[in-house]
Amino acid sequence: MHLNQFFPAKSYSFLILIGFILIGRPAHAQSQDSTRIRAMFDEILRNGRCYSWLDYLANTIGGRLSGSPEAARAVDYVYVQMKQLSVDSVWKQEVMVPHWVRGGKETASILSQGKKTDLRICALGGSVATPAGGLSAGVVEVHDWDELEKLGRERVAGRIVFMNHPMKSEFINTFDAYGEAGRYRWGTAMRAGKLGAVGVIVRSMTLSMDDYPHTGAMGYDDSIPKIPACAVSTRGAETLSKSLRMDAELKVTFTQSCSTLPDALSHNVIAEIRGSELPDEVVVVGGHLDAWDTGDGAHDDGAGIVQSMEVLRAIKALGIRPKRTIRFVAFMNEENGGRGGKRYAEWVKSSGQRPLAAIESDAGGFTPRGFSFKGDSALVAGALTMRDLFQPYLMNAWKPGYGGADINHLEDQGTLLIGLNPDSQRYFNHHHAETDTFDQVNKRELELGAAGMCALSWLLAEYGLR
Amino acid sequence: MHLNQFFPAKSYSFLILIGFILIGRPAHAQSQDSTRIRAMFDEILRNGRCYSWLDYLANTIGGRLSGSPEAARAVDYVYVQMKQLSVDSVWKQEVMVPHWVRGGKETASILSQGKKTDLRICALGGSVATPAGGLSAGVVEVHDWDELEKLGRERVAGRIVFMNHPMKSEFINTFDAYGEAGRYRWGTAMRAGKLGAVGVIVRSMTLSMDDYPHTGAMGYDDSIPKIPACAVSTRGAETLSKSLRMDAELKVTFTQSCSTLPDALSHNVIAEIRGSELPDEVVVVGGHLDAWDTGDGAHDDGAGIVQSMEVLRAIKALGIRPKRTIRFVAFMNEENGGRGGKRYAEWVKSSGQRPLAAIESDAGGFTPRGFSFKGDSALVAGALTMRDLFQPYLMNAWKPGYGGADINHLEDQGTLLIGLNPDSQRYFNHHHAETDTFDQVNKRELELGAAGMCALSWLLAEYGLR
Repeated sequence: MHLNQFFPAKSYSFLILIGFILIGRPAHAQSQDSTRIRAMFDEILRNGRCYSWLDYLANTIGGRLSGSPEAARAVDYVYVQMKQLSVDSVWKQEVMVPHWVRGGKETASILSQGKKTDLRICALGGSVATPAGGLSAGVVEVHDWDELEKLGRERVAGRIVFMNHPMKSEFINTFDAYGEAGRYRWGTAMRAGKLGAVGVIVRSMTLSMDDYPHTGAMGYDDSIPKIPACAVSTRGAETLSKSLRMDAELKVTFTQSCSTLPDALSHNVIAEIRGSELPDEVVVVGGHLDAWDTGDGAHDDGAGIVQSMEVLRAIKALGIRPKRTIRFVAFMNEENGGRGGKRYAEWVKSSGQRPLAAIESDAGGFTPRGFSFKGDSALVAGALTMRDLFQPYLMNAWKPGYGGADINHLEDQGTLLIGLNPDSQRYFNHHHAETDTFDQVNKRELELGAAGMCALSWLLAEYGLR
Repeated sequence: MHLNQFFPAKSYSFLILIGFILIGRPAHAQSQDSTRIRAMFDEILRNGRCYSWLDYLANTIGGRLSGSPEAARAVDYVYVQMKQLSVDSVWKQEVMVPHWVRGGKETASILSQGKKTDLRICALGGSVATPAGGLSAGVVEVHDWDELEKLGRERVAGRIVFMNHPMKSEFINTFDAYGEAGRYRWGTAMRAGKLGAVGVIVRSMTLSMDDYPHTGAMGYDDSIPKIPACAVSTRGAETLSKSLRMDAELKVTFTQSCSTLPDALSHNVIAEIRGSELPDEVVVVGGHLDAWDTGDGAHDDGAGIVQSMEVLRAIKALGIRPKRTIRFVAFMNEENGGRGGKRYAEWVKSSGQRPLAAIESDAGGFTPRGFSFKGDSALVAGALTMRDLFQPYLMNAWKPGYGGADINHLEDQGTLLIGLNPDSQRYFNHHHAETDTFDQVNKRELELGAAGMCALSWLLAEYGLR
């Protein structure tokens, strides 16, 4: 539909009221859109290539943290694959990225009353190493900032702080549980370091009770001593907590040899199908190409990369030439820096393009439920009028909300930011852990997400927003 | 809400028109319902036991086909677990069931130009055995009934018919693809037998390309010779099809030693929380306790059993006493006979109860998307008015549709039949195959389905339907 025609004037409040109802467009045009969208789903469900691309990214290349040889291989692979699609242009965009390396395998154990019990840990991304022989200290367990502050320097100094804050099971959308708990991964080393702690162990951010530690970015403050921080598996957290109840004086030893190297040269990969009428108005589809080294980055975010690649493949295969440009962007360095997203947004701003809308897939390759929209409220309301076109695909849970970590850098350019929302239940079982692997991705679920992104990006490129 | 008040008169057409909008109920009562439903989700997501019950059913007992020792153990297990919940009554209901046994492991191979290639097969449920040394014959490949009929007796007699009909990937709901393809599993032995075929190989009913054969019930006609029928994995089907293109005269040998024993005594397991005001009006929650022997029956239908058990546990734990009776039924023999469902419906009819509504979970333990409703159109429209209460749980895809194979026997008693509809994308990858295992079930997805069933069964028991 022509979203344009909904916004001819500056009086938006009425339009927002009617924003949830498809109106004002001839029935035959709506029917043509439905038919075209159906063709996109058919094309991708029958002939989709995203699953085999993901197989290569995950199984042949594997985890691809910024600055790693695997990240460089992933850049080359995606570039070559997009070249082979014969879209209008494909290029690499240089970006300097942080370069953190894990070093050897981490180890940890509890020493209590002469007995040694191993824990499964991994270093948090960005952490410093322990001393080479390991860090040994007594442990204080806390569950939130209040408990930590109440302990104070007297009880924290010289000890390891064990932040045992579980993700809450009662949130229906697990991203809400992550939002509630994630700050403890990011912030405990700073808060505990300020009180004189010598190390930090954080309970892994997962709703599953298992033996897999989950990494992820953590922060330091240059004014506070940098102490080593690791994640312990949920079962390990339960073990440590129980052990502390039996023996408050136990010691934990953990060893990690991670380090931060000088920034490295890397790339975003960009490809596009140019618009026939308004080529400088751009709709982005994308995900992030970097992935933590613990797993093979199949869900986070290989899925988003290959779904976005599939969008361009399907549009090309169906012989569609949109009025506005549809551009694929594989962002580098979402996980530990966000440099690729920033670099892309700066380039867009400096080049005088009109970044109309951007769709990011970075919540796993699970069955898509809908989209969330962030931006000017009139634009959001206008976009929501297209929702019913996605009802046949059970992708009609649309709402104002989050866009995506990479595309959010476009916010100040008036871009409508759109996040693909897959089913969230399984995501954090795999997120940043060794279980984020290709075998956990279902081909059809991945393809349905790609098809939904294809349909929405095409509608936006065909009809615009203003 | 009081659905009663929507249907005081016989004029239903207007009510159907407004059936999708929650009206006519004081806001405070709706708010109380929302609060209670939220408490059910909290209780089940925090303290649910369905996942550990499923662990036992699947991993300790395993596949539990009607008449098997495993089925008997499952009956005892569920009975004891329900007894421990201290609900108002728990009992076993006798039912005679078919007793088909697989015998030894099946084998199959292609013999072409001196080369032998193995195929992964399993006998279809209800099939006769091959001769002890195996059945060897030439093969004709067909893709549908038309192709089979066109070949005619001349080209079919004395051969094995290979029905290579793939499930169609373009259906969004995979149950629609199953509905389209499933008749070939059920009917090929009859149709091919009528034309003189000596055996049948059916492509497995799955959308995945892999090595796992999928069993399932097939039919015979007593007027037609009974020929052995098996399923071949999808990859095996591709291999056989390719081999036939290279060598139309190849032979296939397959061996299976299955047989049908005399009917066996088994049981439905029933438990209930009696209604405080109208105990003879009954809302059923249930699934089927039998499962094919190929896997451990975790999704089909261990999930439905433990979710239904959880409904009674949660209502009891929350101290709720519904106005009408909520009854758990574990139906025996859905897979190859449907005897448990028939037996239950006959008993209800003969005992003068009012079987108000029945909810069946038999589509896997995946994230619930909503419910489908079958019955009198005014009852369906009335039920649909409750849909918005389930929006916070993303379970609001409600529609007229299918109930469930076991509860459908209640149709002629005016019961509103309700099917739980989980996400369908992964289901047929596991259905009736050795990959239907506990590790493929996600705890939260299972629990969300149980919570949705709990909420809906309670609303129906509290407010009734007429």
